[in-house]
Amino acid sequence: MKASVLFSGGKDSSLSAILLEPFFEIELVTCTFGVLPVGEVARKAAERLGFPHRTLELDRQVLEGAYGFLLRDGFPRSAINHIHYMAVERLAYEKNVSVVIDGVRRDDRVPVLTIGQSRSIEDRSGIMYICPLKGYGRSAVDLLVNKHLIIEEGQSSEVIKADYETELREIIRQRHGENMIGKLFPSHVQSHVIGRKS
Amino acid sequence: MKASVLFSGGKDSSLSAILLEPFFEIELVTCTFGVLPVGEVARKAAERLGFPHRTLELDRQVLEGAYGFLLRDGFPRSAINHIHYMAVERLAYEKNVSVVIDGVRRDDRVPVLTIGQSRSIEDRSGIMYICPLKGYGRSAVDLLVNKHLIIEEGQSSEVIKADYETELREIIRQRHGENMIGKLFPSHVQSHVIGRKS
Repeated sequence: MKASVLFSGGKDSSLSAILLEPFFEIELVTCTFGVLPVGEVARKAAERLGFPHRTLELDRQVLEGAYGFLLRDGFPRSAINHIHYMAVERLAYEKNVSVVIDGVRRDDRVPVLTIGQSRSIEDRSGIMYICPLKGYGRSAVDLLVNKHLIIEEGQSSEVIKADYETELREIIRQRHGENMIGKLFPSHVQSHVIGRKS
Repeated sequence: MKASVLFSGGKDSSLSAILLEPFFEIELVTCTFGVLPVGEVARKAAERLGFPHRTLELDRQVLEGAYGFLLRDGFPRSAINHIHYMAVERLAYEKNVSVVIDGVRRDDRVPVLTIGQSRSIEDRSGIMYICPLKGYGRSAVDLLVNKHLIIEEGQSSEVIKADYETELREIIRQRHGENMIGKLFPSHVQSHVIGRKS
């Protein structure tokens, strides 16, 4: 059976795909609003991992909604969660999609669907929503990442990644300037997959 | 690296072992208080699955503690959670154990460790605690169980299983008689693994 992994080019979505590879036919799916060429960044990472990849264009209104949440709150939690929920739902309702894979881990706070949201999407769309790393803490993820992936890490402002934050940061930059990004987004370490260990 | 799966002979712990088999060297571990030969029941199931198996004897005081919770509450939730927590911790502190696997799923209510308890055990013992099915709902588990396992299902009073409930029920039967079991334990469908699909 095919499983569609929400893919950002980062280590969590990559590891999720690797963990399910023996049990499902994996495809990687990167969501984009078309603000930046994140689909292309993800495509290259997917190629290095050896999985088929496609891009899914989300409704620009979703990004505008997230932009509104971000300005209202002053921090990106609700904005990122909003995009993520809409991305999971959009993928879940696609024809030929029956399993949606999300790379969220046990200790993640954003983006994360509640159990109620997970069940609701499953019940309405009829798909299976699986978070393979939901029962993994940091040390278990690190162990498997080191065993299976070659990654590069850096500050979120420097590493180009195909996650929801990238395009949200870009419209903040376009509309409010570079300085505003630093005010709205906490700096954190980002990972980007550059290869797979055999 | 070796991973030690808390094994009851049921479908969740069996599926957890199968999901991690490509990534870890699996051993199945069944906890018992020596009240009933549950280790033997589990050993046969483990053999059918093709994994090495051993039994871990828990301190009888843990069962007495659970018995106290059960009589106090009138239902088994705290009692089962108590045994489970003590079992994870006992296994985590064993020499040569570095990864502990728990078959809990997304929608389980009992037995389940909180995120705080999970982190606490990891931090104190230095092991990795992984719940491979924590991000799986019922339909995803059913899909994989049907693909990989041959199971028999029945009411909890009829299927002999190597879970914590079995021995707790037995001491209730010994001390309070058969009728008391029906009062304290809700009847539910139990699964028992009788084979593996190739």
